Amino acid sequence: MLREDRATPIRTADEYIASLRGRKLKVYLFGELVDEPVDHPVIRPSINAVAETYDLAMRHPELATAVSPLTGERVSRFQHIAESAEDLIMQNKMQRRLGQLTGTCFQRCVGMDALNSLHSVTFEIDEAHGGDYHSRFKTFVEMVQRNGYMIGGAMTDVKGDRSKAPHQQDDPDLFVHVHRRTEEGVYISGAKAHQTGCVNSHWLLVMPTMRLGPDDKEYAIVGAIPADAPGLTYIYGRQSCDSRAMESGDIDSGNARFSGQEAMIVFEDVFIPWDLVFMDGEYEFASMLVERFTCYHRRSYVCKSGVGDVLIGAAATIADYNGVEKASHIKDKLVEMTHLNETIYSTGIASSYQATELKSGVYINDDMIANVCKHHVTRVPYEIGRLAQDLAGGLMVTLPSQQELEHPELGALIRKYLKGRKEIATEDRMRILRLIENMTLGRNAVGYLTESMHGAGSPQAQRIQIARQMQVEFKKQLAKTLAGIAPDSAEEISDELSDYMAKVFNTDDA
Amino acid sequence: MLREDRATPIRTADEYIASLRGRKLKVYLFGELVDEPVDHPVIRPSINAVAETYDLAMRHPELATAVSPLTGERVSRFQHIAESAEDLIMQNKMQRRLGQLTGTCFQRCVGMDALNSLHSVTFEIDEAHGGDYHSRFKTFVEMVQRNGYMIGGAMTDVKGDRSKAPHQQDDPDLFVHVHRRTEEGVYISGAKAHQTGCVNSHWLLVMPTMRLGPDDKEYAIVGAIPADAPGLTYIYGRQSCDSRAMESGDIDSGNARFSGQEAMIVFEDVFIPWDLVFMDGEYEFASMLVERFTCYHRRSYVCKSGVGDVLIGAAATIADYNGVEKASHIKDKLVEMTHLNETIYSTGIASSYQATELKSGVYINDDMIANVCKHHVTRVPYEIGRLAQDLAGGLMVTLPSQQELEHPELGALIRKYLKGRKEIATEDRMRILRLIENMTLGRNAVGYLTESMHGAGSPQAQRIQIARQMQVEFKKQLAKTLAGIAPDSAEEISDELSDYMAKVFNTDDA
Amino acid sequence: MLREDRATPIRTADEYIASLRGRKLKVYLFGELVDEPVDHPVIRPSINAVAETYDLAMRHPELATAVSPLTGERVSRFQHIAESAEDLIMQNKMQRRLGQLTGTCFQRCVGMDALNSLHSVTFEIDEAHGGDYHSRFKTFVEMVQRNGYMIGGAMTDVKGDRSKAPHQQDDPDLFVHVHRRTEEGVYISGAKAHQTGCVNSHWLLVMPTMRLGPDDKEYAIVGAIPADAPGLTYIYGRQSCDSRAMESGDIDSGNARFSGQEAMIVFEDVFIPWDLVFMDGEYEFASMLVERFTCYHRRSYVCKSGVGDVLIGAAATIADYNGVEKASHIKDKLVEMTHLNETIYSTGIASSYQATELKSGVYINDDMIANVCKHHVTRVPYEIGRLAQDLAGGLMVTLPSQQELEHPELGALIRKYLKGRKEIATEDRMRILRLIENMTLGRNAVGYLTESMHGAGSPQAQRIQIARQMQVEFKKQLAKTLAGIAPDSAEEISDELSDYMAKVFNTDDA
Amino acid sequence: MLREDRATPIRTADEYIASLRGRKLKVYLFGELVDEPVDHPVIRPSINAVAETYDLAMRHPELATAVSPLTGERVSRFQHIAESAEDLIMQNKMQRRLGQLTGTCFQRCVGMDALNSLHSVTFEIDEAHGGDYHSRFKTFVEMVQRNGYMIGGAMTDVKGDRSKAPHQQDDPDLFVHVHRRTEEGVYISGAKAHQTGCVNSHWLLVMPTMRLGPDDKEYAIVGAIPADAPGLTYIYGRQSCDSRAMESGDIDSGNARFSGQEAMIVFEDVFIPWDLVFMDGEYEFASMLVERFTCYHRRSYVCKSGVGDVLIGAAATIADYNGVEKASHIKDKLVEMTHLNETIYSTGIASSYQATELKSGVYINDDMIANVCKHHVTRVPYEIGRLAQDLAGGLMVTLPSQQELEHPELGALIRKYLKGRKEIATEDRMRILRLIENMTLGRNAVGYLTESMHGAGSPQAQRIQIARQMQVEFKKQLAKTLAGIAPDSAEEISDELSDYMAKVFNTDDA
Repeated sequence: MLREDRATPIRTADEYIASLRGRKLKVYLFGELVDEPVDHPVIRPSINAVAETYDLAMRHPELATAVSPLTGERVSRFQHIAESAEDLIMQNKMQRRLGQLTGTCFQRCVGMDALNSLHSVTFEIDEAHGGDYHSRFKTFVEMVQRNGYMIGGAMTDVKGDRSKAPHQQDDPDLFVHVHRRTEEGVYISGAKAHQTGCVNSHWLLVMPTMRLGPDDKEYAIVGAIPADAPGLTYIYGRQSCDSRAMESGDIDSGNARFSGQEAMIVFEDVFIPWDLVFMDGEYEFASMLVERFTCYHRRSYVCKSGVGDVLIGAAATIADYNGVEKASHIKDKLVEMTHLNETIYSTGIASSYQATELKSGVYINDDMIANVCKHHVTRVPYEIGRLAQDLAGGLMVTLPSQQELEHPELGALIRKYLKGRKEIATEDRMRILRLIENMTLGRNAVGYLTESMHGAGSPQAQRIQIARQMQVEFKKQLAKTLAGIAPDSAEEISDELSDYMAKVFNTDDA
Repeated sequence: MLREDRATPIRTADEYIASLRGRKLKVYLFGELVDEPVDHPVIRPSINAVAETYDLAMRHPELATAVSPLTGERVSRFQHIAESAEDLIMQNKMQRRLGQLTGTCFQRCVGMDALNSLHSVTFEIDEAHGGDYHSRFKTFVEMVQRNGYMIGGAMTDVKGDRSKAPHQQDDPDLFVHVHRRTEEGVYISGAKAHQTGCVNSHWLLVMPTMRLGPDDKEYAIVGAIPADAPGLTYIYGRQSCDSRAMESGDIDSGNARFSGQEAMIVFEDVFIPWDLVFMDGEYEFASMLVERFTCYHRRSYVCKSGVGDVLIGAAATIADYNGVEKASHIKDKLVEMTHLNETIYSTGIASSYQATELKSGVYINDDMIANVCKHHVTRVPYEIGRLAQDLAGGLMVTLPSQQELEHPELGALIRKYLKGRKEIATEDRMRILRLIENMTLGRNAVGYLTESMHGAGSPQAQRIQIARQMQVEFKKQLAKTLAGIAPDSAEEISDELSDYMAKVFNTDDA
Repeated sequence: MLREDRATPIRTADEYIASLRGRKLKVYLFGELVDEPVDHPVIRPSINAVAETYDLAMRHPELATAVSPLTGERVSRFQHIAESAEDLIMQNKMQRRLGQLTGTCFQRCVGMDALNSLHSVTFEIDEAHGGDYHSRFKTFVEMVQRNGYMIGGAMTDVKGDRSKAPHQQDDPDLFVHVHRRTEEGVYISGAKAHQTGCVNSHWLLVMPTMRLGPDDKEYAIVGAIPADAPGLTYIYGRQSCDSRAMESGDIDSGNARFSGQEAMIVFEDVFIPWDLVFMDGEYEFASMLVERFTCYHRRSYVCKSGVGDVLIGAAATIADYNGVEKASHIKDKLVEMTHLNETIYSTGIASSYQATELKSGVYINDDMIANVCKHHVTRVPYEIGRLAQDLAGGLMVTLPSQQELEHPELGALIRKYLKGRKEIATEDRMRILRLIENMTLGRNAVGYLTESMHGAGSPQAQRIQIARQMQVEFKKQLAKTLAGIAPDSAEEISDELSDYMAKVFNTDDA
Repeated sequence: MLREDRATPIRTADEYIASLRGRKLKVYLFGELVDEPVDHPVIRPSINAVAETYDLAMRHPELATAVSPLTGERVSRFQHIAESAEDLIMQNKMQRRLGQLTGTCFQRCVGMDALNSLHSVTFEIDEAHGGDYHSRFKTFVEMVQRNGYMIGGAMTDVKGDRSKAPHQQDDPDLFVHVHRRTEEGVYISGAKAHQTGCVNSHWLLVMPTMRLGPDDKEYAIVGAIPADAPGLTYIYGRQSCDSRAMESGDIDSGNARFSGQEAMIVFEDVFIPWDLVFMDGEYEFASMLVERFTCYHRRSYVCKSGVGDVLIGAAATIADYNGVEKASHIKDKLVEMTHLNETIYSTGIASSYQATELKSGVYINDDMIANVCKHHVTRVPYEIGRLAQDLAGGLMVTLPSQQELEHPELGALIRKYLKGRKEIATEDRMRILRLIENMTLGRNAVGYLTESMHGAGSPQAQRIQIARQMQVEFKKQLAKTLAGIAPDSAEEISDELSDYMAKVFNTDDA
């Protein structure tokens, strides 16, 4: 059973925002139940960021939509199943553009990457076990596309004692799991942490968070849940400087319009009907799902190159306002920032380009390069942020508040003394400094820095994945041949191309 | 005329805090005049940090005090004129200790470095011009020592159009200057930006901010002003997450007890009597003063190695709480953080060690190495901060607020789901994560990161200073000799040791 | 007039090597005229590296050949004009493979990139001036393809005083130029420095090295010259450890079979017939030629990821031989090397992928990303080299010579004392250490390090090119919009996509 | 029994060189027994480097000598037992100076650091076991000082299977050990690898290489051996480009006068009389000896800052010759090189400054900072080298040989075409390029790069040592206190200062 279709699909930003109203979600923030998240000043900027994804689809359909083979209509790329390497590349381009337009996390990549992962995994489970997960799943996707829904992907369990498997935990709820089954479906409990955009979603896709063993069967559950299902509680995560959104004025928040969102979701006896269950007990496919999702998602961090474009622009603007834009060391720092930023973009594109087709027909990007891309994302934004602070000057952290600027007497003092170049309004100088603060210390630093570090896996997770694929034995043989250790075996070596190297040299005969 | 001595000198932390009360300073914060800064929740942590300097002097006099030749008594090292390289080194050790104890900027180094700079500069002005600045200055220092005062150093003008000299600015107030003189003294106007600890000071030492020319004579003013002098307005700079100090609870602020402070001071017709004037029109000594102050102050950033100790400790603690402290990559990151942190410390110590005596008898640390030290400070804390965020995990930026923890129902959910190792209280885990947030994104990130970048001169200022002293011609000759270009001239070369190299090879015959 | 076709085209490695014999080139090395370069022990390894390109084409035609629209036959990719982004990508894959197989520079990329650049530039000169350079050029390319020739591209002039234009130099020969014309053709003089693979080429494509002005018309000359044309002198560049190739034994040279080659070519009155002249005086197209060549060539440094594969393999092998391959820090260093190495590959692929078609129908890769790729190449091999030396251990630079190993008594001592793991022959341990020495200090360090730094432009050249394309104004507007400085103008911004950003968002409507 | 004193002590460079003649050492190089090492063109530059240490002592006694309490006379600092922190600092200054003067390894630091280590270790063995090692050792030192001998320190065993202790090796000779004892003394066998300056020494101090256990007693041997003792074989290590020293001309070797030296020493039944035995079986002191030696020696790498001065000078010279010295990016690179280079110097000085006195009265530098210093040495020279190659330009690796320059016809072509700025002789340009090649790829790159990596312990060894001393528990407590986890315990914390932190806060009461 799927919910009935909406009267009208959600296509525009306004329709999206309207669709979130009146859902009676149980959202807690600063210790209080939020009356209407859409109107909460701390939450609203995160909704605006999602809304921008709808708006871009209206303005630039080539970039942000694709024709779905399921519906035959243009749908958001965030809902589209990639049918080619080109589709994956277009995801990256859309991600960069939205990073440029919002300067923050627009929260729809998890859902996109979850949909694409599940397409192949449900297919392969069915292939192994003969079920109908894949057709259920396609029915769900079609419904999502038809209605224009925003999907959140709920993967990260809270995990408890990291040295123990799910079934070994003292408290079974530390991983989301099925605790009872009926004829209608399953009931799950537990909690998911760091849930990007969950409050702003229409549906949540629940998925296991790691490799599971035979004793973890109850944890091998995948299903779709409406965001307003009974039993869900959202505990909103606080961000650096979040409360500035509740102050009067829009200067001090730096980027008043857009922000990211992460919350913890607690599941208490939440029902999933069978037609929305896409895995139930097939524990041996949990690692496949996690690995494919991670592969897509590590490359989705190309969005940060769009956010980086904003920060580079902000740094160039303050240098301009300070009258030093032409100084060679300033220009050189902008070049370095750009070099690093384009490295994120380029490695993402290369990963998407070097895609392969899976059995279900969906394409998946190259995993090695996805890890290289994400690993840069754990370093590059910090260095770009550092350089942006260099260009900003110390005033960024000693500026008085907007109230001082608006104070009848102090305002004049501030305008007199905090002026940069004559042509530039002091207020504009303050605004751009607050934006840099926002992106390097404040609310959107959460997404640009810390979440760049840990989202889709912390740095060590990428190193492990790179280690798995780096084909040391192949490379050793290259070296030994040249060193004259083995007999000259160029031919042998090329015959051994496999794994990552086979993808690099992807011709039939290489 | 100096103000009369206090009834009792300020020696303890409590005496210091008491001494700040009732001064009727005109301090603005969030658009309002602050009634009593000592009691303002945003300001108080910065006062606590200064108070810790008094407390350390009581607990560990060897570390934080010295016997003053002026009074014959033990005085705070922050008030002491360095009589040896050892004195300079002891400043560094005290700075590191206070960084460890407060995790923030304790605001007294500017005053210390200003006192030491003025000792030699007043002496050399008198030598050139025959005045009595030096004896006036010593009288002032003695008074400061006798009463236990906290000194702020007011150097950084707001500067306006950076391509113009002070006298060329459209508005003369963009640099602090004398605008009238009487028989009693001078009256100054203008503004100083980024004034560390000014609201917490008893006296301000006003100094010019850069090299001055003959037309800038009115800007060549140095003098001491009581912090509560008529005509002074303090406009408080806001910091990332500052308003958390006004929330209930002490968890979310991360380091509830200590913070830094920077404010803009506006001077409107502020009087300085002649006996507190230490330079008036000797514009050709402005650059000497700035260079010596900068030389002392760049090495004073050794404090950041103490703050770094805290952040390393916090990162190790969260790794411990997460149960991963023994993982090789975790340990390796702690080693890297330590290596970098000790580099700051070591370069500071080397600069202080390689000190020279100036004509007035005060010692000054090595300038090249001071710049090397400060230049590391513009990079190292960012990398340590990045690694700390790596160890912290994503929860640092998705944690709910303290109010959720204290909420009757949510609190239980949070304790259940945000637990790390079994033995560790969830609240403690939250506390340490909030401390890392505080130091890498929040209130003390201002001091540990951005102020490390710009305080005592932005990175490019150090590069210019290193360039000035790097003795390329000397090094070229070394290379040419070895390349066989010049005749073998080892002897010649060693005869040419000068400037920095003369300090390196500081024997009489080298 | 083109030379007549060879009796049989050059297809195999052996045919290639045979084709170089008996040409009577005037090649000087160590102060002596080389009798037959093919048999000179210092030169031969560089010939072997080129030969490997022929061999790969035989073994793996998909990877190393393409069907030429000019001949309808499979030709080496090094001779092929790129008809698609895919063709450019396949160049990169072939380059990486040859880097893996030779561990050095195989010298054919300059020719390939020159052919591709001239295809479009001759077309556009003709479009502007109505000549027939383009058809002459295509005739030349077809002849090259038909005969299987190796092409060298001669661009880099010796340049003299870098502050002066070619026509301003004291000595006109400091840039190659036409010094007389006849009915049959032109006669050129001058010298080209750092000529990769020139002695191993059949034809040289002479091209100007920089932007030219109206007074530099005589320098605006492009033409093809047989490598054995009268008037050519080759002065062989010496490389670190080159003379080890003349010692007995093959161990100490590290990679005895392959090396790179760079020489200076002096042109003394060298004739080019009109049908091999592809530019003559159209100075305004010189910068177009240089920029397009550079764009192709900076991305061609993807070859270094193949060389990097060898060095990673060598480092892993010595770690294995030393019995420490499983140590976590060893593995972590191999991961870092791989991460960096794949960054070179990925940025190259992304540049090729983001290609555009030029008027003549040839495709050109993205210039911004080509510069990002090459800029990594100026840093990454040094860091990989440093890590390889870390894994190698100090023995790499204290090993005795092969003669000691073969000495009747000493050999036993060396086998006894320089043993690593029991199963590993001491000689093999020496061989792999010598390979690492070869690649980080020795003969192939020239190509892997120094030439990575300067080939296709030194680092600053890339920074200038990145600066030109970084679209700071576009990025400023992104930042201002988010900071609330300009009116919300997302629409405006997207309308302004141009230059690099237009290529990133390459949809018709974005 | 000590050998009788020389007729005249060795004081000057000439006397030193003369003292090496006629010793009939068994030195093998390129598979042949060397007739007289002093006259071998490959070996002689390494002798010259040692000779420079004698010469500096004559020219600058304050820098390079000290008054020995044993003899009451001025002796080389390399022979002096450090009586103060100042003595240790003066070692560093002398090391930097000699690095400047030779551009290579001058080979005497191992001996100096061995002498200083053994002073305290022999004292403490005697304290524990009641022997007379310490007085024997002082007698030896006095003899060395009186005669002006050069001491080599032989520590690094070849080690065989690194997972096994010495006594567990298949072949007992893989660690040097006592294999028989007589009334006169002990007889040792085995081999020591990477022996710096051994062929140029008068005496070798044999020491164990690692922590030993009770079963390794025969390996716990320390003693002094004359370099020409029967049973010693020296197998000379080859270096990159070493054979250029055997070519005619002095240009291509880059630094024709100076080089380093490392050889393997094989000990076959080598006798040490009892009065030259300083440890015999006291295995539990082996690790103390190794740790103290390593502590001194890691800081001795300050010499590389002197070598770095040469390379910075060479890079500046070639930039000057190329006419680009004023370009901002060139200057900026020289600044970066200097910043990094002074970091090595400063951390070395700080380590020496933070010295402590050991029981025997000798001073030892701080171990944590010594490791920080050496760890920079494993990174900084590589980055300085990379930047030097950046400034050098590609010509460094494509220059023809000196023979071409001297060739009657080619010489003219080379002078014409390889000219830089008009005033600069082409030969000088070649000379400085060859020096940069020498230091980054060639013979002295061995010392400046690879030996910087591995000498005194590879990078991981420093990380282990930093880990041991980083006092994570102390730092955790700092963090917990500020996070409000423990009760406010500033007092407690300061009471816990221990280990490294106790040395930092070295006042009696801190």
